[in-house]
Amino acid sequence: MTQARQPALVRMEKDERGVVRLTLDDPQRFNALGEQMLEALQQALDAIACDASARVVVLAASGKAFCAGHNLKDMAAHPELAYYQQLFARCSRVMLAIQKLAVPVIARVHGIATAAGCQLVAQCDLAVASDQARFATSGIQYGLFCATPSVPLVRNMPAKKAMEMLLTGEFINAAQAMEYGLLNGVVAADRLDAEIERLVQAIVSKPRTAIAMGKALVYRQREMGVEAAYQLAGQTMASNMMDVDAQEGAQAFVQKRAPRWQS
Amino acid sequence: MTQARQPALVRMEKDERGVVRLTLDDPQRFNALGEQMLEALQQALDAIACDASARVVVLAASGKAFCAGHNLKDMAAHPELAYYQQLFARCSRVMLAIQKLAVPVIARVHGIATAAGCQLVAQCDLAVASDQARFATSGIQYGLFCATPSVPLVRNMPAKKAMEMLLTGEFINAAQAMEYGLLNGVVAADRLDAEIERLVQAIVSKPRTAIAMGKALVYRQREMGVEAAYQLAGQTMASNMMDVDAQEGAQAFVQKRAPRWQS
Amino acid sequence: MTQARQPALVRMEKDERGVVRLTLDDPQRFNALGEQMLEALQQALDAIACDASARVVVLAASGKAFCAGHNLKDMAAHPELAYYQQLFARCSRVMLAIQKLAVPVIARVHGIATAAGCQLVAQCDLAVASDQARFATSGIQYGLFCATPSVPLVRNMPAKKAMEMLLTGEFINAAQAMEYGLLNGVVAADRLDAEIERLVQAIVSKPRTAIAMGKALVYRQREMGVEAAYQLAGQTMASNMMDVDAQEGAQAFVQKRAPRWQS
Repeated sequence: MTQARQPALVRMEKDERGVVRLTLDDPQRFNALGEQMLEALQQALDAIACDASARVVVLAASGKAFCAGHNLKDMAAHPELAYYQQLFARCSRVMLAIQKLAVPVIARVHGIATAAGCQLVAQCDLAVASDQARFATSGIQYGLFCATPSVPLVRNMPAKKAMEMLLTGEFINAAQAMEYGLLNGVVAADRLDAEIERLVQAIVSKPRTAIAMGKALVYRQREMGVEAAYQLAGQTMASNMMDVDAQEGAQAFVQKRAPRWQS
Repeated sequence: MTQARQPALVRMEKDERGVVRLTLDDPQRFNALGEQMLEALQQALDAIACDASARVVVLAASGKAFCAGHNLKDMAAHPELAYYQQLFARCSRVMLAIQKLAVPVIARVHGIATAAGCQLVAQCDLAVASDQARFATSGIQYGLFCATPSVPLVRNMPAKKAMEMLLTGEFINAAQAMEYGLLNGVVAADRLDAEIERLVQAIVSKPRTAIAMGKALVYRQREMGVEAAYQLAGQTMASNMMDVDAQEGAQAFVQKRAPRWQS
Repeated sequence: MTQARQPALVRMEKDERGVVRLTLDDPQRFNALGEQMLEALQQALDAIACDASARVVVLAASGKAFCAGHNLKDMAAHPELAYYQQLFARCSRVMLAIQKLAVPVIARVHGIATAAGCQLVAQCDLAVASDQARFATSGIQYGLFCATPSVPLVRNMPAKKAMEMLLTGEFINAAQAMEYGLLNGVVAADRLDAEIERLVQAIVSKPRTAIAMGKALVYRQREMGVEAAYQLAGQTMASNMMDVDAQEGAQAFVQKRAPRWQS
């Protein structure tokens, strides 16, 4: 499950608990989401989607920045509509792959996240940042409105704050990102791994099946009207309850003992 | 309008202003939403829906906890899909009945609210909590993802905070619940009734018809696109304005006197 | 581009940068949105929509209040359904015109904003207020639920906070409005223009075409499911990238120089 490509743009490690750590590893280009980076990320996500032993993904990055978004240099070199359409379609496929993954994805944001890098944070299920991190949808500074980043942004932040980021391209700091809903937590840089581990541990100690059913349900039902949402949620919960782990959980509750999960 | 059942799982009292106080009253089971509790709650809500003199509902609970959600003991005893489907459908019907009620429902949260108990808080139109209250969608601790609670949760809280609660099952305190949008207010335990009364008084001093039209409109229009939402809202407001109370309100405004409502 | 009407209810000024300042100018009536004010506002917005040199709108108001909403006196004088339907349809058309405008609209809120005045703030793309400003959807005080104001309110604020404002009609202060997402910033009264200018400058320094594409995209995509949203956003971004300004921006980035915009 390691990348064949040399050098790998995305490093993938998995521990014995099923915690997959994906590391964007192109520090010279601030982990820009060029075509090869997107392809490496897609391959990694596809591999995780097929790996029944994976339980949670931590999306990290090496170097000073978390991710600087698209590679403007590459884009300047290809002034063709078809090229851009393909590039943004590929990028959106990666973003949707994060949402579609059965296991939760936690962004570990140690440095700046701009444009599609900020989108990556917004698209993850959970995100924790160092207090050194900063966030911007900066495309508009170069005449390119961050259209695809706006998709997860408006689904995570208050409307006027999202619009301000998109129209001005200006940075917000980690405390603001937390306040506006882009993050689950902000900690000092030296506590970032401990805080990520806290979330990881909370997730890997739960049955994989219930987590997978639940994550999928949340994203589906929130696009529905409330009555349809309740109908789907009720069906999902009944199916979940028939699962061996939920039966074990209920028995463990009755018998006042710790549950032993199968998944 | 009192429950025939002995002892009543849900106590219902109504004062001369039309303020209905519903009290979940099964403290030994932490007011768990078992079948009988759900049926008692449904009956109470149905009775209120038929009572033109009711103007606002305060949903309270007795004992140490506000509500511990579904009764895992009952669920462990019935490992049948049809049973679970019926249970969650019944619970969702209660939740939707709160939304469909013409009069506003205010949750009075004095203690912990977990799983479907947390959902109950999220589903109410308004909610005020004691600073001793705590909130969790804890089903996942027992292998059961809080699918139906996720429906009002994602409609009240930032996406990442809702996802964190659902995936980890961990508690948030009242201040956090306030910050994330789950509550309208947090006060010291001995000020809880005063704060509830402030909201109650603000509502009962308004005409019932306008409140009913308005509550229904808010939930309908927010599921629509903005243009359709404006069309429906404009029609609703024009109808509201033709009501005798709105005419009286406008006259009272012009004549600089207090309005006298019919409804 | 000045109003022919004497005296103009809406003053319109445009500087050499394309910054249009619209000023509601009926201080005796607290800039109430009567029929003539709505017509003047609609005409101003229509004129801006046709003006390719306009780049951003600042919506301000003169006198003590920002805007007191509909004119209850006029409404009391016309107890006819058709009148009300027309009035609210006209008002909603103005509100949607703000959203449909290619250029961003910033509310400059120096005083109280009530009912449709509060709606105006919520409907603008961005909003900055003086710490003296206060906000209420106060119609319900007169028996008229703020139905049309609820449309942008629930799209900008947490559900329970919006419901509280709508049901009680009570004021929130500027700090609360900021916390709940109704504003982008709150400053002392004597810093209001400086803060507005900061946003204005951030917007006029970007290419007009990208801003226009982006604003339209944000409002369209957020009404879609996430997959359709990504598809539309990707197409929009590819089109944006083919624009001369985005090509210039990418070249400027590569050449490490400031871009020179055409639009």
